[in-house]
Formats: sequence, structure tokens, C-alpha cells
Amino acid sequence: MKTKTQRILIDTSGGVQVIDITRQVQKLLAESDLKEGLATIFVPGSTATVTTIEYEPGLVADITKALDRIAPRDGHYEHDQRWHDGNGHSHVRASFLKPSVTIPFSNNALMLGTWQQLVFIELDVRPRNRTIVVQLMGD
Amino acid sequence: MKTKTQRILIDTSGGVQVIDITRQVQKLLAESDLKEGLATIFVPGSTATVTTIEYEPGLVADITKALDRIAPRDGHYEHDQRWHDGNGHSHVRASFLKPSVTIPFSNNALMLGTWQQLVFIELDVRPRNRTIVVQLMGD
Amino acid sequence: MKTKTQRILIDTSGGVQVIDITRQVQKLLAESDLKEGLATIFVPGSTATVTTIEYEPGLVADITKALDRIAPRDGHYEHDQRWHDGNGHSHVRASFLKPSVTIPFSNNALMLGTWQQLVFIELDVRPRNRTIVVQLMGD
Repeated sequence: MKTKTQRILIDTSGGVQVIDITRQVQKLLAESDLKEGLATIFVPGSTATVTTIEYEPGLVADITKALDRIAPRDGHYEHDQRWHDGNGHSHVRASFLKPSVTIPFSNNALMLGTWQQLVFIELDVRPRNRTIVVQLMGD
Repeated sequence: MKTKTQRILIDTSGGVQVIDITRQVQKLLAESDLKEGLATIFVPGSTATVTTIEYEPGLVADITKALDRIAPRDGHYEHDQRWHDGNGHSHVRASFLKPSVTIPFSNNALMLGTWQQLVFIELDVRPRNRTIVVQLMGD
Repeated sequence: MKTKTQRILIDTSGGVQVIDITRQVQKLLAESDLKEGLATIFVPGSTATVTTIEYEPGLVADITKALDRIAPRDGHYEHDQRWHDGNGHSHVRASFLKPSVTIPFSNNALMLGTWQQLVFIELDVRPRNRTIVVQLMGD
């Protein structure tokens, strides 16, 4: 068994932005010689997350709206009182949604469903240069 | 170290349905020759999830009710406007709760607490034939 | 590749309590001879969770407040009707936030962002003696 730790770089526009990274992660998997194992996709940072979704514009809008239910953008945050970043809601959302997602792979392919894509979600309020860690473990 | 990727098949009734799969996963672990490692339980699909819970009828009812707070069944969803599946809320809930859960094992047993069961949660509105991926990695 | 499964013990005060465990996990990693791999931090129990957060008092307060939006402490819970623990909301929160977080490591260091700490969150209403499982897998 081997571990391969790689990075994907993306520039985001800020606000809630849902970005399909399925192909990029599958490409890294294809380039590895690993057939069966576990892919961990991890965001080093505290205002973004990764998850899976049926990637279509309707659901992207629905997710954006539902995030406002968990931590409203217009709410009061102690973090903003102290740091004046205006992203207290981004931090709360990211802590609840967590920084990683784990997806088994088999036959050198992510075991995603037909209508299931892997997405990075930018939760911060301003554009960011993001690094996403993709760790493949298996043989 | 080895990786064993297996599947559990279950038929669900739709709606919010919480199903205890602890025994089935523990059985797969017992049948493997792996003593120490990581179990990843993953749902290929975008309208279901897996997590842990103290499995008793009261909490199952409480979870069902609380899911309606994150993404109300009676809410308006763009997904439903486009696809008319009536499961926009199912998708939002599944994306927030994510498709996998990771549980370490030791001495050939999942390291769950005494009152902690592993559950699959059907979030879709209609009955489904579900495949759950159970990947055991360790030695 | 090797698997090392260890435990951290902490005494909590109950209520929502957010505890930074980054140093303790990094210390276990430093003591291991593992350079590259995956750290899984797991809570055996159904009323606590682990995640990452920018650990500062403002956000700790914001998280505490936002948890009340997912499952209000003052709400009605079937679990409490049956078991009279008064922690139905703790269970719901823990099931939604899940019992584990997975963080890749490289060069014998967790790949966390600069402003990202690993935290244990006590969600139960009373003080607890908690065991947290830290499983390091890699080489």
C-alpha cells in the first residue's frame, strides 16, 4: 500500500461558490498507479468545505439558500466584532460542514453515484486562492 | 496492510428512514482478517447519508424533525422547479450531512461507544434500492 | 504502511464546550515514526463531535449560538420524554456533526491551515470523562 498526497489549486470568487472538482480528483487518481483504496479530500483553511452533490444549477442555488439557515449572513457574530472580517457566518458554516470528505475508490475510479459530484464550496466573503489536499491511500 | 471494499444492499421505504447497519458492518469486519485499521462507510448517491446515533425510537423521531429545520420539506427548491422530483430538500440535507463516516477499528471491532450505533439515513422521498460501500483498510 | 491507534483523555465541563486538541494530536504524530498519511480523530459516544475551527473566543461563542439553531436546547425531544437525560438536543447535534474528522499529514505534521485548529466539542449537558481515538495510518 502507498500514500500519495497532492494538491489542487483553484481561485475562487468569494461568496458561496460551489465548484465541481470531480474531474481534477479523478485525473490525479488516474495518474496514480492505485486501484483500490481511500481518497481524502481536505481543505486547509477554516472558511471552506468539500462535500458531494448532484451538481446542477438548481441545487447550487438551494444549497446557498440553506446555508443561510444554518448561519445567516446578516446575523450577529462575535468573530466579526473582534476581527472585522465580516466572515463570522463563513467560519460557523465551515466548522459545521467540516474540512474533509472521504470517498473510497475501486478499479482506479472514485465510487461516486451516477448523479453525485465532488464539490469544493467557498464559504468566505472574498476571493481566495485555495489549495485543496487530495490524499490517495491504497494499492 | 490491506484494503477490502465490500457492499451492503438495503431496500428503503423513502421519507426519512433511519436504519441501524452496525451489525452488518461488524459482520464484514469479523469476516475479514483485519484487526486494526479504518472503516469507511460511504453512500454512492446524493439523497442519503450515514452517521452514528444512539439508536432508539425517540431519537429517530427527533432527528427526523430536526432535518426539517435544516431543509424544510415544504420549502421552495429550485431543484424541484427544474426536475420535478420533489426531493430538493433530500439533496440539500444529504450534501450537508455528507456521504461518508469514518470509524477506526481495533481488535477486529468498530471502536463505537456503548450507546452509539452506525446508521444509514434514507433522505429521499421514494423507496430506493441502496448500495452502501464498506471499505476496511488495515492489518 | 502502519496503523497506530491511540487515545486522548479529557474531562469536560458539559454544556457546549469547545476544546483545542491540536497540540495533543500533533504530539502523538510527532512521537510516531509516520511521515505521510491520514489522521482520523473519532469520538466513541453519541453526544460529542470533532471538527476544525479558527480557535478564538468570538467563534467559540458563535458556534455555541449556531448549534442552538440546528437543535434548540429549549425544544421538545422525544428522547427526553423517554430517558429524562435532558440531552435530546445534544444527541441530534452530534448525529448531524458526526463522530469523526479526517486530516491528512505530511512531513510528520497535520496539514492544517495557519488559522485552523482541531477541536473536540462537548455537546452533552453534564461533565464527562471523554476518550478521543486518534488513529494514524501511513508510513
